[in-house]
Amino acid sequence: MNQTHSAIDVIRAKRDGHPLTDEQVDWVIDAYTRGVVADEQMSALAMAIFLNGMSVGETARWTRAMVDSGERLALSGVDRPTVDKHSTGGVGDKITLPLAPLVAACGAAVPQLSGRGLGHTGGTLDKLESIPGWRAGLTTDEIAGQLREVGAVVCAATEGLAPADRKLYALRDVTGTVESVPLIASSIMSKKIAEGADALVLDVKVGSGAFMKTEADARRLAEALVGIGDEHGLRVTALLTDMSVPLGRAVGNAVEVAESVEVLRGGGPADVVELTVALAREMLALAGLSDVDPAAVLASGGAYETWCRMIRAQGGDPEAPLPRAAHTHVVEAPRDGVVTKLDAYAVGVAAWRLGAGRARKEDPVQHAAGVLCLAKPGEAVEAGQPLLELRTDTPDAVPAALAALAGGYEIGDAAPARTPLVIDTVHGTVR
Amino acid sequence: MNQTHSAIDVIRAKRDGHPLTDEQVDWVIDAYTRGVVADEQMSALAMAIFLNGMSVGETARWTRAMVDSGERLALSGVDRPTVDKHSTGGVGDKITLPLAPLVAACGAAVPQLSGRGLGHTGGTLDKLESIPGWRAGLTTDEIAGQLREVGAVVCAATEGLAPADRKLYALRDVTGTVESVPLIASSIMSKKIAEGADALVLDVKVGSGAFMKTEADARRLAEALVGIGDEHGLRVTALLTDMSVPLGRAVGNAVEVAESVEVLRGGGPADVVELTVALAREMLALAGLSDVDPAAVLASGGAYETWCRMIRAQGGDPEAPLPRAAHTHVVEAPRDGVVTKLDAYAVGVAAWRLGAGRARKEDPVQHAAGVLCLAKPGEAVEAGQPLLELRTDTPDAVPAALAALAGGYEIGDAAPARTPLVIDTVHGTVR
Repeated sequence: MNQTHSAIDVIRAKRDGHPLTDEQVDWVIDAYTRGVVADEQMSALAMAIFLNGMSVGETARWTRAMVDSGERLALSGVDRPTVDKHSTGGVGDKITLPLAPLVAACGAAVPQLSGRGLGHTGGTLDKLESIPGWRAGLTTDEIAGQLREVGAVVCAATEGLAPADRKLYALRDVTGTVESVPLIASSIMSKKIAEGADALVLDVKVGSGAFMKTEADARRLAEALVGIGDEHGLRVTALLTDMSVPLGRAVGNAVEVAESVEVLRGGGPADVVELTVALAREMLALAGLSDVDPAAVLASGGAYETWCRMIRAQGGDPEAPLPRAAHTHVVEAPRDGVVTKLDAYAVGVAAWRLGAGRARKEDPVQHAAGVLCLAKPGEAVEAGQPLLELRTDTPDAVPAALAALAGGYEIGDAAPARTPLVIDTVHGTVR
Repeated sequence: MNQTHSAIDVIRAKRDGHPLTDEQVDWVIDAYTRGVVADEQMSALAMAIFLNGMSVGETARWTRAMVDSGERLALSGVDRPTVDKHSTGGVGDKITLPLAPLVAACGAAVPQLSGRGLGHTGGTLDKLESIPGWRAGLTTDEIAGQLREVGAVVCAATEGLAPADRKLYALRDVTGTVESVPLIASSIMSKKIAEGADALVLDVKVGSGAFMKTEADARRLAEALVGIGDEHGLRVTALLTDMSVPLGRAVGNAVEVAESVEVLRGGGPADVVELTVALAREMLALAGLSDVDPAAVLASGGAYETWCRMIRAQGGDPEAPLPRAAHTHVVEAPRDGVVTKLDAYAVGVAAWRLGAGRARKEDPVQHAAGVLCLAKPGEAVEAGQPLLELRTDTPDAVPAALAALAGGYEIGDAAPARTPLVIDTVHGTVR
């Protein structure tokens, strides 16, 4: 760290299209964390990065500096190989819930530090909090202990991990500098590297319900994420997966927990099972456990058993009934035919309007609110047959949800072409 | 003003390369002035403007919004035509001092609200404050009264003029967003339009001692300034003038006042006289007084008489001796020959190091410090002949001044090609 680099010099360098030096990156992140670089200076730098970009090398260094702004989770007492998963966020994306106990049941340890939902995408912690008694906040010792005893933990990130990222993320949120690939990638990876797992599988979503609407944008993000992993010696694989249609049939909080339990018990929607198993295979491959078949472990009931232990370890009762919404509204099929469209974004916004999501991070969520997709693209329906079931504790919200759904679904005469769920895989170079 | 435009929407629009609407510009400037838009949001917007630009129309609206953030100087009681001058800043640029009383003596009224120096360029107020008793701070009534009685006033801008510009300028200074043509142009023009003059002549400097180092950059700035004037119905002419060599022989504060008095008394360096008369002709043309010959008025002593009245009106004694520096250091010609180079930037930095300028706006300046250029490009010298005289009250500063001058002057065998002082003229469309 060299205090002679003033904030203005760093801003000017990036503004004028020059790469930032390692020394400049280290200095500016540390000085920002300590309050020496002011918010108005960091936001100008963030905009310059937004418009002029950062190379893979710069982004990796930026990530490292954010990791170094705080502590790393000490997982040294865990003797199984550790492997984590991160999704860039989608609609009905409850995959963490069946995946973490499945991969643990296969022999790896899964330290999954998760977030809350914002806007039309749900948050894993919000979903799990619909289970009576379950708590998201664990100490570092509790995390390590649960990893040793159960093999899987899904909880909130501790305060000490990557504080520079937390501060910068809040700043980007109010300064129009969120949608930058290097800033998104370094934010994601700084938290994951600080978690201390040996390997990481990334689920980069593509489509209307995702942050990245096009395959090209999603690929750029996947490559940036994998590039940072490579530079940090982390074993990383990224899957590009479809998010133009909601995953599974349930979108919300308790409804997604219920669907996850179905999957853990050997049932559930085919797409949720397919993606859970695909991600588990990648995680096990990175963990050196590619001889274990996750589909067989899922069918055996082993993953469900680990789920119950994981929920109980965090105070939850996996057998307790989940909350049910006070009010239900059914949208019926307007005609006979085949569902040709069910837009993930429209369904995500509808669930949000019903109370399942939040507009600001301090808002509460309704555990029981959400949308059930009773018929999905390719399925035949008759006029009057239930298509969507809206659930909420605040029936006043139904008109806004219906407005969000307008144009979001279509019934046609022929089944649409099936798009593959897993579009592509981007492998890192560390093995 | 429409409060539904959030700051983030405005930032995103400019970030994504869209023009800002009039409504967005009006809202964001007003909200920033009131503190509704935060500094970190405005700095992100300033960086987006820096990198993506603003059209002439956007820049004119931005300027108008900054003018409207405060009051306008009421010059309605002044019955002569009002005309002002602004220089983008140079080394040895004391032109305002002889020019304002000259143009007043020719029959116009000159309301010249000026600034202080920063870095290697001097400030008109700093120079005039070397005159015993002279004060820069006048009320609006005093300004109007002096314009009626003397015809010329050079003073500090009042607090109420363009407060949005003052706030934004301070923010740009710490966020690496100073060197943007639309932001520079709107800053200059908002202050000048708020001053309320009918016409304005701009002296846009080009060269090492100027903000704009190349003719192309200076022309872009001149065109932006004139474009804003056109959009506001202001009569504007811009001259591009050379600033590769210091203007005149004196660079500092009291030394520049002394040189200006020489010019007002009919003597002084030829380049200072030439530029003063050229700018006066443009100002008189815009004021509808093109039949008056400023060269004749200068020769008649009328301008000097107005100078004395102008200085006395602000408490100064035009006959009092100017402060003299405690210490003098002479740089001698190293060989016989002709001066082939005297770099404006090097001389400006040397004067600054000697105490004539300031690094931060709260720093004091030494009134007597500065540099006298005893031989200028094209003049023959003999080895050992005095070339530069450094003056300061703090002799410890001399080595730093000499270091700044290293490589800044050259003696050769043949006189260099003369560059014209006035490079070009850019006319506005309002007449």
